[in-house]
Amino acid sequence: MIDVQNQPDTRGIYIQQTGVSGVCLPFLIDDGGQTQPVQAIVRFTVALDENLRGTHMSRLMEILDGWINKPIAFRTLDTILREAIDKLETNAAHIRLDFKYFLERRAPVSERTSLLDVDCSFVASLVEGRTAFQLGLSVPFTTLCPCSREISTVGAHNQRSLCSVLLAFNGGPTITIDKLTALIEAQASSAIYPLLKREDEKFVTEAAYDNPKFVEDILRDVVIALRSIKGVRSFSVECENFESIHNHNAFALHDEIGSD
Amino acid sequence: MIDVQNQPDTRGIYIQQTGVSGVCLPFLIDDGGQTQPVQAIVRFTVALDENLRGTHMSRLMEILDGWINKPIAFRTLDTILREAIDKLETNAAHIRLDFKYFLERRAPVSERTSLLDVDCSFVASLVEGRTAFQLGLSVPFTTLCPCSREISTVGAHNQRSLCSVLLAFNGGPTITIDKLTALIEAQASSAIYPLLKREDEKFVTEAAYDNPKFVEDILRDVVIALRSIKGVRSFSVECENFESIHNHNAFALHDEIGSD
Amino acid sequence: MIDVQNQPDTRGIYIQQTGVSGVCLPFLIDDGGQTQPVQAIVRFTVALDENLRGTHMSRLMEILDGWINKPIAFRTLDTILREAIDKLETNAAHIRLDFKYFLERRAPVSERTSLLDVDCSFVASLVEGRTAFQLGLSVPFTTLCPCSREISTVGAHNQRSLCSVLLAFNGGPTITIDKLTALIEAQASSAIYPLLKREDEKFVTEAAYDNPKFVEDILRDVVIALRSIKGVRSFSVECENFESIHNHNAFALHDEIGSD
Amino acid sequence: MIDVQNQPDTRGIYIQQTGVSGVCLPFLIDDGGQTQPVQAIVRFTVALDENLRGTHMSRLMEILDGWINKPIAFRTLDTILREAIDKLETNAAHIRLDFKYFLERRAPVSERTSLLDVDCSFVASLVEGRTAFQLGLSVPFTTLCPCSREISTVGAHNQRSLCSVLLAFNGGPTITIDKLTALIEAQASSAIYPLLKREDEKFVTEAAYDNPKFVEDILRDVVIALRSIKGVRSFSVECENFESIHNHNAFALHDEIGSD
Repeated sequence: MIDVQNQPDTRGIYIQQTGVSGVCLPFLIDDGGQTQPVQAIVRFTVALDENLRGTHMSRLMEILDGWINKPIAFRTLDTILREAIDKLETNAAHIRLDFKYFLERRAPVSERTSLLDVDCSFVASLVEGRTAFQLGLSVPFTTLCPCSREISTVGAHNQRSLCSVLLAFNGGPTITIDKLTALIEAQASSAIYPLLKREDEKFVTEAAYDNPKFVEDILRDVVIALRSIKGVRSFSVECENFESIHNHNAFALHDEIGSD
Repeated sequence: MIDVQNQPDTRGIYIQQTGVSGVCLPFLIDDGGQTQPVQAIVRFTVALDENLRGTHMSRLMEILDGWINKPIAFRTLDTILREAIDKLETNAAHIRLDFKYFLERRAPVSERTSLLDVDCSFVASLVEGRTAFQLGLSVPFTTLCPCSREISTVGAHNQRSLCSVLLAFNGGPTITIDKLTALIEAQASSAIYPLLKREDEKFVTEAAYDNPKFVEDILRDVVIALRSIKGVRSFSVECENFESIHNHNAFALHDEIGSD
Repeated sequence: MIDVQNQPDTRGIYIQQTGVSGVCLPFLIDDGGQTQPVQAIVRFTVALDENLRGTHMSRLMEILDGWINKPIAFRTLDTILREAIDKLETNAAHIRLDFKYFLERRAPVSERTSLLDVDCSFVASLVEGRTAFQLGLSVPFTTLCPCSREISTVGAHNQRSLCSVLLAFNGGPTITIDKLTALIEAQASSAIYPLLKREDEKFVTEAAYDNPKFVEDILRDVVIALRSIKGVRSFSVECENFESIHNHNAFALHDEIGSD
Repeated sequence: MIDVQNQPDTRGIYIQQTGVSGVCLPFLIDDGGQTQPVQAIVRFTVALDENLRGTHMSRLMEILDGWINKPIAFRTLDTILREAIDKLETNAAHIRLDFKYFLERRAPVSERTSLLDVDCSFVASLVEGRTAFQLGLSVPFTTLCPCSREISTVGAHNQRSLCSVLLAFNGGPTITIDKLTALIEAQASSAIYPLLKREDEKFVTEAAYDNPKFVEDILRDVVIALRSIKGVRSFSVECENFESIHNHNAFALHDEIGSD
């Protein structure tokens, strides 16, 4: 059977990435030794030589299928990328996994536990023998507006907010999903919890009122927190407050080269 | 050229609806005499006789194309449906338009105006000679939690909320998008505004604090408000509060037969 | 601490459903004895007496948290609903779980296996002592257009399609996710597979060409297939073809009362 | 009334972007002299000095409100950004508009016209006195698989695909939405049309069969086409085929510095 993908190509264009996207698969994520089953959306691509017409997409799917239900840590992504480079006869490979990850949260007063879902991304690239890792997280929390609090006789508008960070590491990751989430939550007006009894609701309401923060405050405090993580090559932060008094959001972003 | 759609079908199944969906087109919406250009997502279907294999989808697209940039009110949908029934030789036709509609809002103190976007639906069905109309609206506003306010020394959690209603009328619609939106906003802890100066932010913050409402309060007050509209055959209401202290929502729904 | 939710209400409106929505939790789904970890989006509501102001949302979260990592079958939903009715002191409760479920698929020639993701819903309501169950599935497959094939000298347009069914049962469910998916796939021009080698791609391409079907053909064949399932009280079917030659979809729907 | 935003900040962090996001507004888009009403989702941000605590979000909304229903071309964005820099007393401003734009398409045989919707982005940044423009487009079309065609006795799998490009210009834009869309469509197996009569469907089916292309073929041909546009500083291209035989997509991306 003819291998149309292997036909020569004369357009002279080296393709940076070609492969599969929107692949949904069940994986086990290993976050610093803790494993958790997730349902990941995967993009898995390789570079394509300028002399070849197409890549062999089914080989990428075969590689992914080999990792179902085996623990995937960042170092595993390196193995997956080397497998792709080997089986696809190329010099660069990239993988991105987007998944929801659950973290146990303890209500501040009742100490009732529940599971908080955060959106995570594992991103890895192997280009010319060197593997680069990125960890992405979107953490929900509460923000309470300092201006609204200051100018109002009573109350202050507050809302659910989302802080999305992407950290590129010099080598492997130097922080877990668990710890990075906690680091970001600590910069909010208050963390949020799936399960709150009345005494917890009182605590969270008052804690947020006592800790008013603009979207810019959150952004700066998260930037300072991220600078403290060792081994970070660069990072970006985006904060979005789903304003309770508008039908649009307050938004801020910042990226910088890490201090290491 | 053979007309495959017109082939006979022997499976004996009358199809309730077949046609096109996800069609994006620019229309002019006529809301009680006011016209506004919108970008609508359209579903447009007809019934199919049990003896026919398929309908002629391109005729539905031709009909829609004839209405681009002409004012569309509910009565126009009746004309469109009659055109479908005529051209597709069927006894039933259905159309649904989903679009964003802009309403002018005046900030409560500064009186600065701005445009609020609400999601609307025009739904019409013509079955055996009788046309039924439905108007759908999703209105955003603020809710402030009565429990949080009561139990906390200071502050109260609040958040953006969305109230979605669908009204089925006995005949044509008896209320405009404009008036129905205002009726729903009036049941909130506070309406929301795209543009608020500091004096407005103070007003809105304090107004919401002075008017705490659970998702159930909003639901009941909207139900009472909708009962006051004449010519309503039935309606449904869904309220969702995007809780600022959780990563999930408070939700309530109710539907009932109209009083007329 | 005052219980604001327990305050009396004088508006005289019995609320059909109030509770939590958009709750993301990890569950084990039991599909006819096979269990699989999933990440479900949950809506969990109860009825609220006309004399009470609000329900106790945190109790609903406590109930859900008790079911994490325990197998959930349809009969388990009945237990969950009874727990809600008991703890919330109400006469009706409703739960809906939406989740992705993975099914093994074997390529038609190479027999290579891979995992296909389908969107599922488990819906259950307990009203006045009687529990009603619904199973929802959205199954992707290929459709090839009979008209395009007939009028063209070579080729025929084809595309990814999605068939969404919702089955209401008289008692408990009488078919598994696994079997219902296979039943729907069997009505397509061809099933689709995550992993296809070249010999499989040839098979699937030719199989689809030999089995051209309009969206109406799929709908009717799925209706006939669903009629064969015992214990079905009613069902609805929606088919949508993401037409390769348009930027919109072909769509058909049908619902009927089951034959049992 | 105290201006909390104007409070001094001592964290020493210059914020690259802060402002509003998710703002939905009606604008008139001027594409090379042709104007069209659109409903845009806007992100509008400014840089914030390291000595200031927060920006004045309401001023950004006031600026946007001033441009409702006035024609917006790329040069207008420059004016909007200068207004932001002036009113927010900053040295950098950014704006991004995402909107659907309609283009007339003529069916290949019947010559019936209809409107195709494409997703567009206007992106502009004014940093230290220099304004940079980017034009983004997502164009839908048909791709037909060369491998499937070659190995199969009859037929070939084909599907809807989306090619997303983002062009950064040296100065103002040197190509219109209209012409850039046509340039991308010309690289597909076939363009797609909202309205096709049977003779057109035959034409499009056969045209796609006669012009089989992998996702890599499309990517390379689009890269070559984009290189021909004058005044392009850099560009990126992403192509995604919604494979009719899989539940995932074929994907390729490429970015490069323009030839000018």
